[in-house]
Amino acid sequence: MRGFGSDNHSGAHPAVLAAMAAVNEGHVHAYGDDAYTARATEVFRQHLGEEIDVAFVFNGTGANCVCFGALCRPWESVVCPESAHVNTDECGAPERVALVKLVPVTTPDGKLTPELVRPHLRDFGFEHAVQPHVISVSNVTELGTVYSPAELRALADLAHEHGMFLHVDGARIANAAVSLGVTLRELITDSGIDALSFGGTKNGMVFGEAVVLLGEARAEHLKYVRKQCTQLPSKSRFVAAQFEAMYSGDLWRECAGNANAMAKLLAEGAQAAGVELAYQPQANEIFAWLDEAVAKELAERFHFYIWDETPDALGRVQVRWVTSWDTTDADIAELLVALR
Amino acid sequence: MRGFGSDNHSGAHPAVLAAMAAVNEGHVHAYGDDAYTARATEVFRQHLGEEIDVAFVFNGTGANCVCFGALCRPWESVVCPESAHVNTDECGAPERVALVKLVPVTTPDGKLTPELVRPHLRDFGFEHAVQPHVISVSNVTELGTVYSPAELRALADLAHEHGMFLHVDGARIANAAVSLGVTLRELITDSGIDALSFGGTKNGMVFGEAVVLLGEARAEHLKYVRKQCTQLPSKSRFVAAQFEAMYSGDLWRECAGNANAMAKLLAEGAQAAGVELAYQPQANEIFAWLDEAVAKELAERFHFYIWDETPDALGRVQVRWVTSWDTTDADIAELLVALR
Amino acid sequence: MRGFGSDNHSGAHPAVLAAMAAVNEGHVHAYGDDAYTARATEVFRQHLGEEIDVAFVFNGTGANCVCFGALCRPWESVVCPESAHVNTDECGAPERVALVKLVPVTTPDGKLTPELVRPHLRDFGFEHAVQPHVISVSNVTELGTVYSPAELRALADLAHEHGMFLHVDGARIANAAVSLGVTLRELITDSGIDALSFGGTKNGMVFGEAVVLLGEARAEHLKYVRKQCTQLPSKSRFVAAQFEAMYSGDLWRECAGNANAMAKLLAEGAQAAGVELAYQPQANEIFAWLDEAVAKELAERFHFYIWDETPDALGRVQVRWVTSWDTTDADIAELLVALR
Amino acid sequence: MRGFGSDNHSGAHPAVLAAMAAVNEGHVHAYGDDAYTARATEVFRQHLGEEIDVAFVFNGTGANCVCFGALCRPWESVVCPESAHVNTDECGAPERVALVKLVPVTTPDGKLTPELVRPHLRDFGFEHAVQPHVISVSNVTELGTVYSPAELRALADLAHEHGMFLHVDGARIANAAVSLGVTLRELITDSGIDALSFGGTKNGMVFGEAVVLLGEARAEHLKYVRKQCTQLPSKSRFVAAQFEAMYSGDLWRECAGNANAMAKLLAEGAQAAGVELAYQPQANEIFAWLDEAVAKELAERFHFYIWDETPDALGRVQVRWVTSWDTTDADIAELLVALR
Repeated sequence: MRGFGSDNHSGAHPAVLAAMAAVNEGHVHAYGDDAYTARATEVFRQHLGEEIDVAFVFNGTGANCVCFGALCRPWESVVCPESAHVNTDECGAPERVALVKLVPVTTPDGKLTPELVRPHLRDFGFEHAVQPHVISVSNVTELGTVYSPAELRALADLAHEHGMFLHVDGARIANAAVSLGVTLRELITDSGIDALSFGGTKNGMVFGEAVVLLGEARAEHLKYVRKQCTQLPSKSRFVAAQFEAMYSGDLWRECAGNANAMAKLLAEGAQAAGVELAYQPQANEIFAWLDEAVAKELAERFHFYIWDETPDALGRVQVRWVTSWDTTDADIAELLVALR
Repeated sequence: MRGFGSDNHSGAHPAVLAAMAAVNEGHVHAYGDDAYTARATEVFRQHLGEEIDVAFVFNGTGANCVCFGALCRPWESVVCPESAHVNTDECGAPERVALVKLVPVTTPDGKLTPELVRPHLRDFGFEHAVQPHVISVSNVTELGTVYSPAELRALADLAHEHGMFLHVDGARIANAAVSLGVTLRELITDSGIDALSFGGTKNGMVFGEAVVLLGEARAEHLKYVRKQCTQLPSKSRFVAAQFEAMYSGDLWRECAGNANAMAKLLAEGAQAAGVELAYQPQANEIFAWLDEAVAKELAERFHFYIWDETPDALGRVQVRWVTSWDTTDADIAELLVALR
Repeated sequence: MRGFGSDNHSGAHPAVLAAMAAVNEGHVHAYGDDAYTARATEVFRQHLGEEIDVAFVFNGTGANCVCFGALCRPWESVVCPESAHVNTDECGAPERVALVKLVPVTTPDGKLTPELVRPHLRDFGFEHAVQPHVISVSNVTELGTVYSPAELRALADLAHEHGMFLHVDGARIANAAVSLGVTLRELITDSGIDALSFGGTKNGMVFGEAVVLLGEARAEHLKYVRKQCTQLPSKSRFVAAQFEAMYSGDLWRECAGNANAMAKLLAEGAQAAGVELAYQPQANEIFAWLDEAVAKELAERFHFYIWDETPDALGRVQVRWVTSWDTTDADIAELLVALR
Repeated sequence: MRGFGSDNHSGAHPAVLAAMAAVNEGHVHAYGDDAYTARATEVFRQHLGEEIDVAFVFNGTGANCVCFGALCRPWESVVCPESAHVNTDECGAPERVALVKLVPVTTPDGKLTPELVRPHLRDFGFEHAVQPHVISVSNVTELGTVYSPAELRALADLAHEHGMFLHVDGARIANAAVSLGVTLRELITDSGIDALSFGGTKNGMVFGEAVVLLGEARAEHLKYVRKQCTQLPSKSRFVAAQFEAMYSGDLWRECAGNANAMAKLLAEGAQAAGVELAYQPQANEIFAWLDEAVAKELAERFHFYIWDETPDALGRVQVRWVTSWDTTDADIAELLVALR
C-alpha cells in the first residue's frame, strides 16, 4: 500500500539496494577513507564542479546542522522562512547542535525574496545583536514551491553583498531540478549557493544525505563539525554507493520525475474535482483545502497529514499530499475517485 | 581483502542486507511509527524485559549522546575512563551535543571499578562543582577487556547509592555477551544497567544502533532528545529490520562469536610467535607490542592501526588488531605467518 | 550632563553607594552565604511572599538566561514578542547560555496577548517540534508599554493551562509598578508570574539583578544554573546591600516615580510641540516621530537613540527617549525647548 | 572579623569605593562606550603594551569563559591542570558557555610543565579527537604555587609551536607579580601569554575582572562573545573606575603585597609551630596538614575550608588558609596562637 503522507514513507529504489549489496564485499577503511566514498564524491564533482567539499551524513536534520555549524560561529544567525523545516520540524536541533540562532521571516508561500530578507540584515557590528551570517531556504520549499536559479541568484547576491552565505536545504533538490528542467549545476553551483544539504532519503534512498560546501564556503573544519555533530557514518561506503547509484546516471531524475509527474496528475485531477489548492504545486507536494470531515476520512485511508487543523471560514482544513518515486497512476486514480 | 583495522571495516552480513530488502515494499509511516520498528522493539523486550524504552539511532556517537542527553541536565557530569570512546574518539560530541561534562578517570586496563570511581563522587549539592550523575563504561572496553555482570552490578550499586545512573557504551555488547557466555538479559538488565548504547554496526550491520533506557531511567523526553540530537532516522524500518535479523535469532551470537574466536586464535598464535600482548584480550580486540619497523610494515599490509606510536624502551610500539564477524581462519593464518 | 539615551546611562543613587560602603567592613562568606544576602532575600519575601526563591545575579541578560535555564530543558521553547530584549538585544545569549529556542511573535505594541500567543501553543507531544514551555514578556516592554496585573494574569492562566510558565523580564519592573500604582505583590505574585528577572541596575543601582522563582517554578537546581551560567557573584553582599537600600523602604518607588514623572512631562510637552508619539508611553520610555534631520541633530546633543533609521512617508524617523531616576525638570525643559 | 576562608571574603579597599563614587555623577554611555572605560583601558595598555584588547567583565568564571569562547571553536579543547578552577570550581561553565572540552592533566603541585602537557598535544588533524587549542594555567595556582615568567614562556613556546594559545587564569595575577617581584608586563606580555583573565575582585575590588587578549590572539569577535556569554556590564564605568584606582598607581601592589606578606608570616609561624605544609606557599594561599579535630574546630572559628576531608595516615586533613589585602598582623597572631 502506498499513501500520500510523505516521500519518506516510501522504501528505497531496488537499484539502490542492489548498489549497497554490490559494495558489501570485503573490508575497506571506515569513516569515508575508502574508494567508494571517493567515487561518489567524484560524481558530485562531475555535477557541481571541482570547487566543492562533500561530506556524507545520515539525515536531513544532520545535514542542515553540519552546514550551519560549518558556516557560523555561535553569535551568528540564520535568516530563514518561518515555515522552514529547520525552524519548525527539527526540535531545535539547529540551536542545540549547530549553535546558531534562527531568525524566522513570515512569507506568503514559503519562499524568501530579497525584499523579505533585507529588513533582517541589520545590526552588523552591533554587539547586542546576533550577526546575520546565512540566508537559508529550502528548495523544494516546505509548501511545495520551487526557487528558480534566478531567484536563488538574487538571494545569493544579497547574501554575498553582506558577507553572508546562502544555504539551501535540498531535502528535495532533485525534485526541484526536475521541476525546473535544469541541471544540478545550473540549480546549485551557477545559482551562487554556498552550502547545500543534498537530499537522498526522500528520493528513493535508504538513508543518507550529503553536505556540500561550495567555493568560498569550503572549510577545513567541516570534518570536525560533522563528527562532533554525531553525523559521521562509519561504514561510509553504504551511503556512497547509494548516491553513486542515484547520481552517476539518471536514476535521480527518474525517481524525482515520477514523483513530480504524479503530483501534477493529482493536482490537476483534484482541481478538476473542484478542490482548491493552497499554493501552486511545483514539485511533489500539494496543499489542498478539504472539507474537515472529508479530510479526516481520507487522511486515515490514504495516510496523509492534515497540515493545519484549524478550519477556515468555509469549514475546510488544509491537507498535504506528497507523491513519491514509487507513486503510480493507479494510486492517484484511487485518491481522485475518493475525492470525487 | 580483510584486514584487522576495525570491525567497522567489514561490510554487513548478507542476512542483514536481505532483511532490509525484505521490508522495502510499499509505504509505511516514517520516524518509527511502523510495524517493523514495533517488531524490532519487541525483540529487544524479549531479550531485556518489558521495562525498557528503545530508540533506534544512526551511530554509536549518536547513541551515547542521546543516552547522556536523556539522563543528564547540563550541570551534571559523566564519570568515565580516560580511555573511553566518549572521551577520546567523539570529537567532543558529548559536551557539544549531550551538554554534559565528562570526568575522566585514569585506569590500568580501560575498566572502572568502584575504588577508582569513588573519589570522583564528590561535591554533591555544592554549586561550584558539576554534579556527578552517570557512571559510563564501555563493554567491551576500548582496550579489549570485558566487564562481567558482577563487575557491572558493583558499579550500578555504587551509582544508585548516589542517585546516579550506570550507562554502558555497548558498541561491542554482543562480543561481550558471547565472551562471557551470558544472555543479554544477564549482562544488561540483571546487571543493573540503566542506559545502554546498543551496538549494531560493528557486528555486521550496515548502520544503526539502539538507545535502551531501563527501569527508572526511562524517560518520556527520550524522543525529543533523539530528534534534537539529529539521531531520528526517517525510514526507521531499515534500522529495525537489521536488528530484527540479528536479534530475533542467533545471528548476533554467530557474528560476535566468530569475531571473538578469531581474536583468540590470533592472540594465541601471536603469543606463540613471541609477541607480547598489552592487555588480556577478552573479546575481538587485541593490543600487542611489535618492533616499530615491523609494526609499520604490517600495519600497511593488514590495515591495522598503531595505537600508540611512542616506542617503549625496547623500541616497540603498541598495535591494535580487531577481528570481525567475517574474519576467517585464513586471514589469521596469513597475519601469523607474517608475524613469525 | 544627563541625556535621554537609556536609564543605564545614569549613575547610582547616592543611597545605594552609601549602602555598599556600609557593608564593606570585615569578612563574610562569599557566594551568597552571608547575612546581608539573607537580609535582602528577606526583603524580597516581604514584598512577594514566602513562596519564592531569590538568586542575585550580575545583569539583565544573565537574569533572563538563568530564569530560562532553570525553567526549561533544551528541547523546550520560550514564546516571546519579536521585539523582546531576549530576542533582539542579547546577542543570542538565551540560545547559547540558557539552551532554549525562542519563538518570536509579532505584536503591534510590544505586548503579548492570549490571542497572539495561542497559535504558537501547538505541537505538544510532537517530537519534531520544540515544546512550548515558557511565555516571556517584559514589563515595562521594550516599547514603553505596561502590562496590568489583569493582563499578566490572563497570560499566566494561558501558560498554566498548558503546563507552561510565565516569565517576566522586569528590567524596569519598578517603573511598571509605579506606573500602575500597584504593589510589587499585586504586580508579580498575585498576577501569577512564575519567574521574574527583577531589575536593579536601570533604576539607580550600580549593578545587580535578581532572579525570582515563585511557587511551582521554584527549583533546587537554580543554584547550579546560576553558577554554570557565570552569574554567581562572589562578593554577594554588595548586590544584596543595593537591593536592601532600594527595597526595604521606598527608594525604588521614588527613583522609578521620578523617571516616570519626567517621561510624562516630556511626552506631554513634546505632543504640545506637535510631536507625534509612536506608542502611548506608560512608564519611562517614549517613542516619537521626528523629522530625520532634527532627529540626528538632537540625538547627538541629547545622547538618545534613533530607534528606527528608516524614514516613514513623511521623512520622519522614530526616536527613543528614556528618562531616569535622576532626570530633572530642567533636563526636560531643555529638550522641549530644542524640540520647539 | 576577618578569617582565612578566601580573599573574596574580604570587602573592597576604601579607595576602590571612593573611585566608584567619584565617577557616579551624570550620564555616560553604557556598555563601555564611555571615557572612564577608555581611561582604564589605557591604564592596561601602559602596563601591558599597545597590542592588547581589553574587555571588562563581571567575574572570574565569566572572564575564563569569554577567553575560551574567543579563542576556541567548539571542536577545540583546553588543556589544563586537573586542579584548575575552570575544571573543578565552575560547575561546567566552560563546557556550557564557552563551548569547549577541557582536557585535565594530573599535576603534583597544580602547575603544568611542557613535559606534562606534551603527551596531550596529539591527534592534530584527526577528526575523531577534539583539537588541542589552548593551554590554560592559573597564576597564582589553585594550590598557592606561582609560575615564573620563564615557566610561562616555556608553556607559551610549546603552545605556539602547535598553533595553540596560552591562557592564564589570573584571578590572583597581582599576587603572582608581587611574589615574583616582576612587573605585569614581564609576567604577562613578555612571558608570551595570549589571553589573560585579569583578576580584580579577590584583590580588593567590589566586583569586576578583565579579559585581556594579546598580540595574535586579539579578535574582533571578542565583543560578541562577551555579550553572548552574559558578561557585558551596562554601567561599565563602575568596573573601569575600580581598575583605574587599583592599577594607575601602586594600590594593586600594596593590596597583593599585604596578602602575600601575611601569608608568609602565617606559613612561617605555622611551620615553627610544627605544622606541615602541603605545598610551598608562594603567594597568599597556604595548604597545611592539621589533625582532623583541630582542623574542624579552627575552621569553624577562623572561617577557613578543609580542602580535602579525607584524613591521611596520620589522621590529618588538608586545610586551606587564604590571606587578603586587609589581613593584619593581629589576625595572623590570633590564628598562630590557636595553632600552637
